[in-house]
Amino acid sequence: MHEKILELIERKKFAVLKEELKEMRAVDVAEIFDEIDKKNSVILFRLLTKDDAAEIFSYLSTQQRKDIVSAIHETQLKEIIEELYFDDMIDFLEEMPANFIKRILTSATEEERKLINQFLRYPENSAGSLMTIEYVDLKKEMTVKEALGHIKKTGVDKETIYTCYVLNEKRKLEGIVSLRKLVLLEDDLLIADVMNEDFISTKTLDDQEEIAVLFKKYDLLTLPVVDKENRLVGIITIDDIMDVIDQENTEDFQKMAAMEPTEEEYLDAGVFSLARRRIFWLLLLMVSATFTEGIIGRFEDVLQAVAILAASIPMLMDTAGNAGSQSSTLIIRGMALGEIELGDYLKVFWREFRVSLVVGVFLGTFNFVRMLLLVKAGLNIAITVSSTLVLTIMMAKIVGGTLPILAKKMKLDPAIMAGPMITTIVDALALIVYFNIATLLLGL
Amino acid sequence: MHEKILELIERKKFAVLKEELKEMRAVDVAEIFDEIDKKNSVILFRLLTKDDAAEIFSYLSTQQRKDIVSAIHETQLKEIIEELYFDDMIDFLEEMPANFIKRILTSATEEERKLINQFLRYPENSAGSLMTIEYVDLKKEMTVKEALGHIKKTGVDKETIYTCYVLNEKRKLEGIVSLRKLVLLEDDLLIADVMNEDFISTKTLDDQEEIAVLFKKYDLLTLPVVDKENRLVGIITIDDIMDVIDQENTEDFQKMAAMEPTEEEYLDAGVFSLARRRIFWLLLLMVSATFTEGIIGRFEDVLQAVAILAASIPMLMDTAGNAGSQSSTLIIRGMALGEIELGDYLKVFWREFRVSLVVGVFLGTFNFVRMLLLVKAGLNIAITVSSTLVLTIMMAKIVGGTLPILAKKMKLDPAIMAGPMITTIVDALALIVYFNIATLLLGL
Repeated sequence: MHEKILELIERKKFAVLKEELKEMRAVDVAEIFDEIDKKNSVILFRLLTKDDAAEIFSYLSTQQRKDIVSAIHETQLKEIIEELYFDDMIDFLEEMPANFIKRILTSATEEERKLINQFLRYPENSAGSLMTIEYVDLKKEMTVKEALGHIKKTGVDKETIYTCYVLNEKRKLEGIVSLRKLVLLEDDLLIADVMNEDFISTKTLDDQEEIAVLFKKYDLLTLPVVDKENRLVGIITIDDIMDVIDQENTEDFQKMAAMEPTEEEYLDAGVFSLARRRIFWLLLLMVSATFTEGIIGRFEDVLQAVAILAASIPMLMDTAGNAGSQSSTLIIRGMALGEIELGDYLKVFWREFRVSLVVGVFLGTFNFVRMLLLVKAGLNIAITVSSTLVLTIMMAKIVGGTLPILAKKMKLDPAIMAGPMITTIVDALALIVYFNIATLLLGL
Repeated sequence: MHEKILELIERKKFAVLKEELKEMRAVDVAEIFDEIDKKNSVILFRLLTKDDAAEIFSYLSTQQRKDIVSAIHETQLKEIIEELYFDDMIDFLEEMPANFIKRILTSATEEERKLINQFLRYPENSAGSLMTIEYVDLKKEMTVKEALGHIKKTGVDKETIYTCYVLNEKRKLEGIVSLRKLVLLEDDLLIADVMNEDFISTKTLDDQEEIAVLFKKYDLLTLPVVDKENRLVGIITIDDIMDVIDQENTEDFQKMAAMEPTEEEYLDAGVFSLARRRIFWLLLLMVSATFTEGIIGRFEDVLQAVAILAASIPMLMDTAGNAGSQSSTLIIRGMALGEIELGDYLKVFWREFRVSLVVGVFLGTFNFVRMLLLVKAGLNIAITVSSTLVLTIMMAKIVGGTLPILAKKMKLDPAIMAGPMITTIVDALALIVYFNIATLLLGL
C-alpha cells in the first residue's frame, strides 16, 4: 500500500495520487508522511480534500505539522483549523509558538478567543487538557422524539452522539442519556424520566491517570467534565483515554528503568535530549553504589586472606538485584492497577517473606551443590556463598516488595522504587551479609 | 460507601441492605465481595435482584464465583447464566470444572451446545476468546427507517447497538453501519447505499495484542470477527480491549523483570505459584552470572596485586546494568507501541552509540574527579576505573538497545531482553574490560 503511494509521489503522478488518497483511511495516509521528506509532505498535503486534510493533520507529528504550517497559505491553514475538532485544535495550538497563536486568535470571534485561552491554560495531563466541547446537549422537557430530532439537526459536528448531556438553562449538568436508550425507548417519553441522574463526572483539574481508571472500572465511552458549579465544560472520549493509558504505561516503564519520563518518541528525540533524561538517575545511582566501595574496603583483609570470595560477588549481586526487581515490579504494577493498596503493606510483607524463603532455599541449595561439585570449592566457602544467597534473596524480595508501598505512603511515585534503586540498596546489604558470614565461618 | 454496606451486613439489616444494593452500580457492589467472607458473600448475593445478580456475577473473581456456585441452587444459577452476555458466560465456563460445564450443557438446546463448545475451543488470547455474539445484524435491502425499527425490536439484548453489521443470506459480512449514521441520515436511504464496505475486521485466531493495536490505530469501538469464508462469527467491544491492554502491559512488566507472566492478581496468587513463576529465570540468570566467577578467577593475580580494584567492581556493574536497562526499556516499549520496527536497527545502534558517548564521558569524568579528590586513589587506578566506566556504559547501551531488536528478528519476545538479562551479559563484559585495562595501565 505504502509502496504504491511512494512510487506515485516519486513519479509525480499527482492526478492518480489524488484519487488514491481519497480512497484511503486518514490514519493510513498520515503514516505515509513518516516516510517522505518535507518537500513531498507539502505536495502530498496540498493534494488532500479539505475534509481529509483536517483529519490527517490531527494525526501528524509536531514536526510534520510545523513543516506544513510553514509552507501552506494562511487561508488554507485557517480552513483546516476550523475543520479540526476542538480538542485536536487545542493540542495543535499548544505546540505552536506564541506569535502563531496570537495570529490565529486575532481572526477568531471574542467568544472563541475566550474559550481557546481558557483551554490553553489547563495543565498538561489534566481533564481540561483532554476534553472537547463538541457534545450533544438536550433539555429535560424534550420528548425522546424531539431529542432524536435535535440530534439529527446538530449531531453532524459532534465528536460523539452516543452519550447526550441534559443541561438546565444555566448549563448545569442534570443527567446523561445514551443514544442506545433514545433509540430503544418509546418516542413520547420525557427526557426527564429516562435520563440517568446518578452519572459519573470529573473536574477540569483532575489527573488523567485517575480518569483512565474511571473509564476502565465503569466501562465508559465518554465522561463529562464539570466545573465547581456543576456546569458542563466539556467531555472526554475513550479514544483519547486509550492514548492516556499508553502514555501512563510508558511513563511507568521509563521511571522503573531510572529515566526521567517523556512523551517524545524514541526515534524523534534528539541525542542530547535522550542523554539528559538518563544522566541524572544514572549518576545518583552510581554515587549511591560507591557506598559498596567502603564496605569492600572495610573487609579488604578478609578478601586478601580468601581471594576466591571476590569471585562470587558479581553472581550474588546480580541474583539479589534480580530477586528484588521481580518483587518490586509486581507490587508497582499491582498498585498502578489498583489491585494493591497502602493497607496491604503487611499482607505483602508476609507474602514476600514466604515466597522469598521458597525461592531463596531453592537457589541456595542449587548453588551449594554446584559449588561443591563443579567449582570444587571448600565446604566452608560453599556454605558462606550459599547462605549469603538465601539471606540476600530474602532481603531483596522483602525490600523490593515493601519499598514501593512505603514510597506511595510518602506521596512519592512507587515506580522509582523499581529494579535499579532496589538493586543499589540490596547490593550494599548483600556485601555486608557476605563478609560477616565469611568472617564468622572462615574464622578470619 | 463500603463501610455502610459492611455495617448493614454485620448487623443483619437485610431489608435495608437490599434497598441500598439496588441503588448501587454493579461494579461497586462487586467490590464489596472482596471484603467479606464466603458466608456473607452468599447472603449478599441472594439479596440481589435477578438482573443485578448476573451483571455483578460477571465482575467477581474466579474464587468468588466458585464460592457462590457451590452455595446457590442450580435453578438460580441457570437463571444467572442465561442473563449473562455470551462472552461473559464463556469466560465463566472456562474457569469451571469439566463436569460443571457438562451439567450446564445438558440443559442447553442442541444449537446452544454447539455454539458454546465452539467458543470454549478458541485459544486463550485469541480474537475468538474475546468476542461476543450479541450484535445487531441488518440487511442491505432495508431502509434507514426499517433498520432503526429492527434495532428497536432486537437491540435490548445486544452488547452494543452503536455499530451494526450488514449480512447477506449466508451470513457473510457485507458492510458495517454506525448508529450515528442511521440517526443522522434520511429515513428513506437504503442500507446498501450508506454502509461502509471498506471496514476493518479480524479472524478468530488472531492475537489479542494485534487487535488492541487496531483499536488504537483506527479509534474503533467494536471490531467484527469473521471466519475464512468471511462470515460474521462475533464482535469484539472496546471494554474488553481495555482489559487486554492492561493485561498485555502487565505481561511485559513481568517478563521485563524476569518472571513468567500470569494474569493472576498478586494478592490472589498462592505463595508457591508466585515462587514458581520467579525461580526459573532467577536460576537461569544466576547460572549465567557464574560466568563472572571464571573471569575473576582468571584475573586473581591482578586482584591480589592491587586489592583496591575489587572495591570498584559493584559500582561498575551496577552502573553498567542501569545504563543497559535504560536503553533496552526504551527500545522494548517503542517496539510494543509500534514506534520502532525491525528496520530501525541501524538507526537505534547509531543513536545509542552517540547517547552512550555523551552519558559515558559525563559519568566517567565525574567518577575520575571523585576518585582523585574524595577516595584519594592513585592516578592510574582512577584512570582504570573511569575509562572502564565509559567503555562499559557504551557497551551496555549498545547491547541494551540492539538485543531487543535482534530478539524480535529471531521471533523471540523482545521483553526478555530487558534489565536482568542485559545486566548479566554486560556484567561479564564489564569485568573483562576492567581487568584488561588494569593489566595494561598498572603494568601487571
